[in-house]
Amino acid sequence: MYNTIAKPIPQRSAEEIIQLRRQHLNPTLSMSYQEPIKMVRGRGAYLYDEQGNAYLDMVNNVCHVGHCHPTVVAAGQAQMAELNTNTRYLHDNIVEYAQRLAVTFPKELSVVFLTNSGTEANDLALRIAKTYTQNNDIIVVDHAYHGNSPTMIELSPYKFDGKGGRGRPAQIQVAEIPDDYRGQFRRGDSKAALQYANDLHRCIQAIHDRGAKPAAFYCESILGCGGQVVLPQGYLAAAYAHARAAGAVCIADEVQVGFGRSGQHFWAFESQNVIPDIVTLGKPICNGHPMGAVVTRPEIAQAFITGMEYFNTFAGNPVSCAMGLAVLDVIEQEQLQKNAAEVGAFLLEALMNLKTQHPLIGDVRGMGLFIGVELVKDQTLRTPATQECKCVIEYLKAHRILLSSDGPYDNVLKIKPPLVFSLANAKEFLNCLEEALKTLS
Amino acid sequence: MYNTIAKPIPQRSAEEIIQLRRQHLNPTLSMSYQEPIKMVRGRGAYLYDEQGNAYLDMVNNVCHVGHCHPTVVAAGQAQMAELNTNTRYLHDNIVEYAQRLAVTFPKELSVVFLTNSGTEANDLALRIAKTYTQNNDIIVVDHAYHGNSPTMIELSPYKFDGKGGRGRPAQIQVAEIPDDYRGQFRRGDSKAALQYANDLHRCIQAIHDRGAKPAAFYCESILGCGGQVVLPQGYLAAAYAHARAAGAVCIADEVQVGFGRSGQHFWAFESQNVIPDIVTLGKPICNGHPMGAVVTRPEIAQAFITGMEYFNTFAGNPVSCAMGLAVLDVIEQEQLQKNAAEVGAFLLEALMNLKTQHPLIGDVRGMGLFIGVELVKDQTLRTPATQECKCVIEYLKAHRILLSSDGPYDNVLKIKPPLVFSLANAKEFLNCLEEALKTLS
Repeated sequence: MYNTIAKPIPQRSAEEIIQLRRQHLNPTLSMSYQEPIKMVRGRGAYLYDEQGNAYLDMVNNVCHVGHCHPTVVAAGQAQMAELNTNTRYLHDNIVEYAQRLAVTFPKELSVVFLTNSGTEANDLALRIAKTYTQNNDIIVVDHAYHGNSPTMIELSPYKFDGKGGRGRPAQIQVAEIPDDYRGQFRRGDSKAALQYANDLHRCIQAIHDRGAKPAAFYCESILGCGGQVVLPQGYLAAAYAHARAAGAVCIADEVQVGFGRSGQHFWAFESQNVIPDIVTLGKPICNGHPMGAVVTRPEIAQAFITGMEYFNTFAGNPVSCAMGLAVLDVIEQEQLQKNAAEVGAFLLEALMNLKTQHPLIGDVRGMGLFIGVELVKDQTLRTPATQECKCVIEYLKAHRILLSSDGPYDNVLKIKPPLVFSLANAKEFLNCLEEALKTLS
Repeated sequence: MYNTIAKPIPQRSAEEIIQLRRQHLNPTLSMSYQEPIKMVRGRGAYLYDEQGNAYLDMVNNVCHVGHCHPTVVAAGQAQMAELNTNTRYLHDNIVEYAQRLAVTFPKELSVVFLTNSGTEANDLALRIAKTYTQNNDIIVVDHAYHGNSPTMIELSPYKFDGKGGRGRPAQIQVAEIPDDYRGQFRRGDSKAALQYANDLHRCIQAIHDRGAKPAAFYCESILGCGGQVVLPQGYLAAAYAHARAAGAVCIADEVQVGFGRSGQHFWAFESQNVIPDIVTLGKPICNGHPMGAVVTRPEIAQAFITGMEYFNTFAGNPVSCAMGLAVLDVIEQEQLQKNAAEVGAFLLEALMNLKTQHPLIGDVRGMGLFIGVELVKDQTLRTPATQECKCVIEYLKAHRILLSSDGPYDNVLKIKPPLVFSLANAKEFLNCLEEALKTLS
């Protein structure tokens, strides 16, 4: 017993790895960059390739408290050597985690369900919403992405209206994206938020027209795949009111933006002065270890008691909970929410200054360390500068800064680094971005 | 930076933990036993409670190579300190894992998709099957459970026909369970397998009657929630032929029974002399760390290239793959499949002997270390002895052996220990089970 010697894992060249991916892996999986990078190590805000080159990581909103944070790693290492089993036995870690997580929410949101991913969390939220409301139809925001499961693809316009998509299912209604840069109601229009929210009336009417009622309104607290869109102030309050009046519950998807990323608040929905009925969590929750969560009100959780258990084999195991607790410890003790607020504010202001000098920058928006820089070919027509966006990303990569793009036209630079991203990191990025813009013009 | 001291996790009494679960956790989550146990440590085939009492674990088919196996733990510990990032960068672990996993399958099954759970694997298999066949309807086996997502609940009779279930959706057809102990065709009937398989004709007809075609036939290679039912020899070959003739692909769910558990073969479907089109994996794949996988034929994987990417944030990360590789190493080097075959054969024979002396045992069946002992009140009527089954489990618990039950009447003792379960463990269990049966009679 215990006499296994782990076989060494062969170190392969990038070409060999790409070849093996072609032969044995999911062929739909894309790779970052024209020439993909083989990463072998991560520390703080940096990823390192085989040659030891350090890349400043502005893409990873998963390794939230920094790559391989020693406190999180140590918590996982210790617990995995001690016990990893399911939630049908009693364990200290799961209740401590549920309690500590609940404390970060408004007191109305006090019941936690654990899953293995943000997709599983959004899937579970749907079941809970349908059971609680006894309704079936769903309202989502245009261009939203809520997960990779069959059900989440059916309710994600980013997927069902995207390449290979099968279009909008009858039970899903798509509300206009409240994009006050590109949409029909623009920033500066004091009624933009309410006018966007009014589009929920159309969705609700369409649901009523088919003899149904809405079970839920899903909305990310800052829109991710929609293009890093900050919701106009007042949007969620009005949209929630419309949705609730029609019998729906309101689900805040914080998979990308939660855990202090937005700076001023621990949860991004708080910036909209609302309390959702259900909140879904994922990506940063365990700094890369697979976990997700649903947080809801006790009365909604109680209504989910129908005789059908929600049991999830891996979810809530002692290792995941230990790592989740460590992530909460690090955010708190290293004041990462404050760092997100400060570095984010600095970045936002500097990017807005950069915008005044570079007509390629159409818009700068964001909150904390979740920022979008929308590139356009023409400031008035707002023609998406998709190709230029790609060039900026490749330029930054050549200078060892990792950045991705998003948005319906894939022309929005998507800034979402680990929260340990420093002022010095921000300055390095700004300098490099400025060079890239100069090179392009 | 890096100055976080993890807060100690309070050690709470069982009562306090139960109280906090009530306050902050998923209220549908059941606990094992009338008086739940607080487990704090796991080693090999044993779990340990707070007082240091060792419980022989015959429930955990997740901690497959033994609780906290040092080789698997070391692999996870080392990799999590080095790098944990997504699959859009190149990494050695993922291609090594995909290649090593593919080697364990018939050569036709060579493409691997990684997920975070068995549920996510079955969900993805459904998307692949629908895309490949361009059909929509699904055939499943009665009492089957394939996962906890909205889609998997819709296709799991165990859920949709169980408490809180909403019944069978129109696009799902349920084939009769090929249970040759309790069903209409019994063991000894040489045509039982073919006759059960013929029920797929009825399912296919029902699909045609609604103007549709089948996309997939899902079947566990040994039925789990159905009551540890070994498929009659020839069942899958005939059922696959019927399903394929109607245009469906055949999905083998190996989430519970794969990775050598069935003893004679690494994959339980091999005992039926078939090659599925898609195989789904979960539970034991990383010994408790959250991972799942879909393995399929290249032509099916290619057909999934529609422009829509399957990207899964956590899945396939270097830590999960390192742990998956270590699990494969341990199974191979510690010859755990052979152990499953030998200890399983011994157990099966001993249980059959026990059956001759104890009329409460109606049936003994299984393969390797996946065995069911069905308890009945009457050998002829086969009346389920559900309450007695519960008593046996509580009796074993009092003697520090962990066992669970399953099956449509919850009267089947479900034997599925970690594969390090030894002959001595088997003897200890048999002695204790015999005492339990004597006490009951």
